Amino acid sequence: MVAAFSRRDLWDSDPVQHLNVHSSHQVIAALQGMLLVEDDAARRPLYQRAAAFIPAGKPHRVVAMHRTDSVRCYSLFFHPTLFPVPDSSIRLFRTSDLCCALLQKMNEHNLVDITGGIEGRCLGLFLSLLPEEMEHRCESFRLPVASTERSRRVIEYLNSRFSSELRLHQIAGAMALSERQLSRGFKHDMGITVMEYAKVCRLIHASYLLLHQESKIIDVAHDSGYASVSTFHRDFKRYFGVAPNRFRRSTGKPESKLDETPQ
Amino acid sequence: MVAAFSRRDLWDSDPVQHLNVHSSHQVIAALQGMLLVEDDAARRPLYQRAAAFIPAGKPHRVVAMHRTDSVRCYSLFFHPTLFPVPDSSIRLFRTSDLCCALLQKMNEHNLVDITGGIEGRCLGLFLSLLPEEMEHRCESFRLPVASTERSRRVIEYLNSRFSSELRLHQIAGAMALSERQLSRGFKHDMGITVMEYAKVCRLIHASYLLLHQESKIIDVAHDSGYASVSTFHRDFKRYFGVAPNRFRRSTGKPESKLDETPQ
Repeated sequence: MVAAFSRRDLWDSDPVQHLNVHSSHQVIAALQGMLLVEDDAARRPLYQRAAAFIPAGKPHRVVAMHRTDSVRCYSLFFHPTLFPVPDSSIRLFRTSDLCCALLQKMNEHNLVDITGGIEGRCLGLFLSLLPEEMEHRCESFRLPVASTERSRRVIEYLNSRFSSELRLHQIAGAMALSERQLSRGFKHDMGITVMEYAKVCRLIHASYLLLHQESKIIDVAHDSGYASVSTFHRDFKRYFGVAPNRFRRSTGKPESKLDETPQ
Repeated sequence: MVAAFSRRDLWDSDPVQHLNVHSSHQVIAALQGMLLVEDDAARRPLYQRAAAFIPAGKPHRVVAMHRTDSVRCYSLFFHPTLFPVPDSSIRLFRTSDLCCALLQKMNEHNLVDITGGIEGRCLGLFLSLLPEEMEHRCESFRLPVASTERSRRVIEYLNSRFSSELRLHQIAGAMALSERQLSRGFKHDMGITVMEYAKVCRLIHASYLLLHQESKIIDVAHDSGYASVSTFHRDFKRYFGVAPNRFRRSTGKPESKLDETPQ
């Protein structure tokens, strides 16, 4: 049995409906595009320069942020005996330059055994660094996961309309439900309101645009269904903890490697 | 005896006049500014994103490109038994993202033993990668080294006047020599003419400006003593193998780490 191997993926197909489970631990990083990492409790956005640790045995699903986009990822799978974990939760963390470079090196060839040779040394070092890396959490927020078919349909509808300023009666109309049925059912299943969920979807979409396009903030706001830039700014900061401009500067861009000031 | 250690340097003093020798192999990389790596035969510019391998026992000197600048470097010293070398020459090479990140990690603390723990793993990996890294040579050209006091004085004079379009009679005047004395003596000692040497100094200065300033090419040309941009362009390309603009784009900037296309 191979104790560790690497895999490169190109996501351009429809996401699978079921959650996956595998017997190895997995570390996954998005090279391009944005991923949504989902377990039975939540769905969380995964950006460039960040990685997700998915423990062995954990039911999960990784989907592309936009179905139309190709998302490229690096994955690393390794036997649970190689890395003891404190708990069985999925952890999103910001990778250092070194871990980033190691991940890239181990993924130079696809689907190869990386237990020996230079890759083996890379893996050994990667696993030594991992506990500290995993402390640099980057989880701005989570989206709850639907458990009823109706909620799933509503979410699918919301996910296809990032850029519209949606009203409750429109969504209800499209779903052939009364506003009351929609609101009550969704809130009961998801724990948050339809409009709150729609807002978070639009903010995730905005964060995607910030990272992948050079557009001005005002255009990002409009393309995410915000008529007012100041409302966009306020909402974005509330969910992401930083202003849109700062988010764009700090996330997704590789850090300069050799410009640190020695003490 | 410590088999390997790291050192961070900040060069802001006058360069030493003699060549150094040490009993360890050394790998040195400039973090900021430009270094000139000199042995008994030549002086070569060392840019960001490149490193020099200096074998144990090799007489050498590393000086800052501009005396007024602070140059920051990372060095790694390791016992010759850890890395057998094919020959005793200094090698300048372009570092990969991974080697760059490893060097940075091993230099997180100054003057520490890096034979054990995570640093030891980094060193092991670094040394495994080094033979391949060293194949990516980046030696655009060499400057000959002075062996007479008179040539040394001429070079010092040229090095302080990068930005002037110097004439032979001016240099001779400043050195209190006839043009004939200057030309013959310098060519005899150095193997190239005074004006050729001055040109290379100005081009190295230009390469420094390209990497460290946002100035337009025309301003870089003027600041390096070129009245004509097309002459600057032609000379630069002849010595560096690439046009000034391409040089600026390709050297010194950290490569994007996670944007490689998986096959």
